[in-house]
Amino acid sequence: MVRWQPGTRERLQGTALQLFSEHGYDETTVAEIAAAADVTERTFFRHFADKREVLFAGQDDFLGMFSAPVEDAPAGTPPFELVRRALDAAAAFFPDDRRAWSRTRQRVIDAVPALGERELGKLANLKVHLGATLRTHGVAEPAATIAAETAVTVFHLSFARWIAEDEDRDFGTIVHERLDALAEVVHPGR
Amino acid sequence: MVRWQPGTRERLQGTALQLFSEHGYDETTVAEIAAAADVTERTFFRHFADKREVLFAGQDDFLGMFSAPVEDAPAGTPPFELVRRALDAAAAFFPDDRRAWSRTRQRVIDAVPALGERELGKLANLKVHLGATLRTHGVAEPAATIAAETAVTVFHLSFARWIAEDEDRDFGTIVHERLDALAEVVHPGR
Repeated sequence: MVRWQPGTRERLQGTALQLFSEHGYDETTVAEIAAAADVTERTFFRHFADKREVLFAGQDDFLGMFSAPVEDAPAGTPPFELVRRALDAAAAFFPDDRRAWSRTRQRVIDAVPALGERELGKLANLKVHLGATLRTHGVAEPAATIAAETAVTVFHLSFARWIAEDEDRDFGTIVHERLDALAEVVHPGR
Repeated sequence: MVRWQPGTRERLQGTALQLFSEHGYDETTVAEIAAAADVTERTFFRHFADKREVLFAGQDDFLGMFSAPVEDAPAGTPPFELVRRALDAAAAFFPDDRRAWSRTRQRVIDAVPALGERELGKLANLKVHLGATLRTHGVAEPAATIAAETAVTVFHLSFARWIAEDEDRDFGTIVHERLDALAEVVHPGR
């Protein structure tokens, strides 16, 4: 009989991350993750297509987090304001109590090149998705693509800063610092 | 006896690209590339670490193309002007007579996910390198990293536009259109 219970997915993620962190990603098998989480391998594969996806689950939520504020904004909202709203929504997705998990996840990813490339692919996918959302919302090209790329770049840099060991400011503060830096680079002294 | 002659490297690249394009990347072996270019496999491996690197050779030239104009600029040159100079230098690296080769290369890369991820990794490396160059040139953080990411983003988008089948404008024109769009997105109506 297949066990199914609320929280199994999250427990598998937590267990897997701990094993990856302690023993190495390549050295950890799905069988070990399932055993440590007290489920069958079959249950594991009901939640994740493979071992790698434990670290990259929730892609739809991730995309929606950025695009929902754009879809909800009044027509005619300037592109940079749409970017700001998307990033504020993303910041809410990364509260301080998630920081320790994110730091550990990043260390696991940084240790395995194929995982780093998968992470870059995830961000590339987000750029495409957000660009399409901006176009649907009336932003013309090439501004829509530029705005989407800029938003994801600021997100990525803010995330990297947020999980730095010497950082304790919240995600939103770090995002705004980077948006301000971008404005200063593009239009100095304004 | 190992043959060594000027142009062997370029000939191997051209031959490999043609074989990848006609038969598929995964279906083409190093032995086939070497035979078609009339060299031994050993000669192939004197030029390229593996089959994949035929498509990604010249990384040092690529990095230097962006960083040299930054290193050569007078102290105090504003970051966005440094970005513009780096991109103008990059544009010179992609003259119109290189466009057909670049289009074919991109089709090969787009057909194989691992090659696409390698390409993203190359761009990520460029961001890190250019950010370090900007910091060395006196640009503070987070502006240096923001400027480097922005430069590479504009380069990447410009390149994608430049190799589009319906595009015949030169690289520099396309770059400037995107820089202008970025300026307009960040501060509309200025």
